[in-house]
Amino acid sequence: MNVRGTPMRTIWLEPDGAVGIIDQTRLPHEFVTARLGTLAESAHAISAMLVRGAPLIGATAAYGVALAMRAQASDEALDAACRSLLATRPTAVNLRWALEEMRALLQGLPPAERAAAAYRRAGEIAEEDVAINRAIGRHGLDLIAAAWQRAGKRRPVELLTHCNAGWLAAVDWGTALAPIYAAHDQGIPVHVWVDETRPRNQGASLTAWELGQHGVPHTVIVDNAGGHLMQHSRVDLCIVGTDRTTARGDVANKIGTYLKALAAHDNRVPFYVALPSPTIDWSIEDGVRDIPIEQRDAAEVIEIAGRLPEGGIARVRLMPDGSPAANYAFDVTPARLVTGLITERGVCAASRDGLLSLFPERRQLMAGE
Amino acid sequence: MNVRGTPMRTIWLEPDGAVGIIDQTRLPHEFVTARLGTLAESAHAISAMLVRGAPLIGATAAYGVALAMRAQASDEALDAACRSLLATRPTAVNLRWALEEMRALLQGLPPAERAAAAYRRAGEIAEEDVAINRAIGRHGLDLIAAAWQRAGKRRPVELLTHCNAGWLAAVDWGTALAPIYAAHDQGIPVHVWVDETRPRNQGASLTAWELGQHGVPHTVIVDNAGGHLMQHSRVDLCIVGTDRTTARGDVANKIGTYLKALAAHDNRVPFYVALPSPTIDWSIEDGVRDIPIEQRDAAEVIEIAGRLPEGGIARVRLMPDGSPAANYAFDVTPARLVTGLITERGVCAASRDGLLSLFPERRQLMAGE
Repeated sequence: MNVRGTPMRTIWLEPDGAVGIIDQTRLPHEFVTARLGTLAESAHAISAMLVRGAPLIGATAAYGVALAMRAQASDEALDAACRSLLATRPTAVNLRWALEEMRALLQGLPPAERAAAAYRRAGEIAEEDVAINRAIGRHGLDLIAAAWQRAGKRRPVELLTHCNAGWLAAVDWGTALAPIYAAHDQGIPVHVWVDETRPRNQGASLTAWELGQHGVPHTVIVDNAGGHLMQHSRVDLCIVGTDRTTARGDVANKIGTYLKALAAHDNRVPFYVALPSPTIDWSIEDGVRDIPIEQRDAAEVIEIAGRLPEGGIARVRLMPDGSPAANYAFDVTPARLVTGLITERGVCAASRDGLLSLFPERRQLMAGE
Repeated sequence: MNVRGTPMRTIWLEPDGAVGIIDQTRLPHEFVTARLGTLAESAHAISAMLVRGAPLIGATAAYGVALAMRAQASDEALDAACRSLLATRPTAVNLRWALEEMRALLQGLPPAERAAAAYRRAGEIAEEDVAINRAIGRHGLDLIAAAWQRAGKRRPVELLTHCNAGWLAAVDWGTALAPIYAAHDQGIPVHVWVDETRPRNQGASLTAWELGQHGVPHTVIVDNAGGHLMQHSRVDLCIVGTDRTTARGDVANKIGTYLKALAAHDNRVPFYVALPSPTIDWSIEDGVRDIPIEQRDAAEVIEIAGRLPEGGIARVRLMPDGSPAANYAFDVTPARLVTGLITERGVCAASRDGLLSLFPERRQLMAGE
């Protein structure tokens, strides 16, 4: 998508074999890129959230393995690379997927061939992500076009999204925002209510930034506001992303997604979840019971970073000394609250049958489990 | 309640006739009091939220009328005082109530007697509020004691609250927090999940501060987290306040309350609203349809104030330049999501019949409407 009018991606290969990324911790106040030259830098980029979002984490991890192989291509080095990358974000299922892809490919090759093969496969993983998200955009576009029809084409389609599941969370296009970019690029007028998304404020910082850079009309609201807007028919459609989807369509996404799904359900607002199929965890059904919820540093709740009036970034403390805070990173939205799942193969019901209708090859695998 | 171990109130009369308040915009980082010597200072204290919370706004407005009468006790001055105070917070129903009380009393008196009578009535309004909230605490205490019984007295009762409906929002005790203080003071172990409460962060700043000062165990969470906690049985009881309650029990409270009520309902967690009866607006039924929702300055969403690491308070910008924000102050929680209303006369169902069972004198008035 566009940055300052120029198309960009979130991750790219530099001519010298290093990996270029956008340092997303500096957004929205500064646009800064970073170079990853080593496995350690790649792991740090994931754990410190210079890159975030399930698909981009997967691509970064794949390139991290390539950087590790470039330095040292032994079996031990491959094991160590996969282990350290996997430990960066335990909830991210397609981090695991990307690492399994890399390991499966590389362990069958002699060490001398591993670096080149790893770069090639990491590049393919990035391209596959772009293709997947472009397809998600195409399928989700139909839902937005239908909402525009229902609105009599007399006003913009009002969308609500939570967190950042845009192109900054992927290699390009994004998941939840891909349909919105596709609609905007096709001339369907849209307006996006952007949940601020505490803590870390990925909505107010990243989603607002990328929508603004691409020219998509939007308004930032606090996470508390979406229910009120839905009560007053100000939202036609919710679209969010997911970090992990169970085989029956429960979705783990940024904390607070569940609350928006409840409000959408209570007000009969369609609530869609956009996801690339690698984020489906076919091995579990009940997300509330079985998805472990990462707890992150309480400092993300206690303090916040922003730009000072005179310029420069500062962290300020929001709470009294002595009051503790807890920081749950995700919650699980049960499938019963999800109107549909938007995947690269099309839109389906958030259910086992719905998912299997799009991914019939899983039917046999699951029966065999 | 206690501040640094000493009992305090939020508003008091100084020996010279000025009115003392806690400047709540300086909390939680600084504890500073302010003197209101004029009508204009009182109106500013309300509109700039040096004082906030329905009952405290009412008491401050009553004292504001007294300060106006002290300066000039004509009919015109009384009209002007009521008008300017009413304009400070249009949604606050007991601001209106307090001003009507003052006007009804004062317009029947000769100007020479108005100042003294206004001070006396303002003092009574403050004392009545303390009595009301003490009674709310006593009635709500029974609910917490019952939850402790249900927990087998083996662990603290887990409560969740939104915004600040504590003693800082009242003259003393508070509304939603009064039962919690009553339980704590009686030795029932409690732990409070405190919603940060964006924008303005009254939970993270004020509720955390006052619970901490009084020694009540608590943990601050982002507004997004409550649903997750309820899904995992980490909340026994929600108690929130309200700025306005309709005759059938719909409640307008700080934006986001509705989302917590939905989560409580979805997880069968009791959801109680504590309110002094002056905040009941007997003239309306359907809160979603009929309660106008104040929109405040978008700067409250775009920027946030906090304490710098080196000390001192700074406002930082959270969003990219050029992205707009909207700031809805309240939302309405329909009565169907409210387990019960805790009033100074007892606990009742959130319904017309429930409210009339506690306030039977309204039955005749409403029939006559």
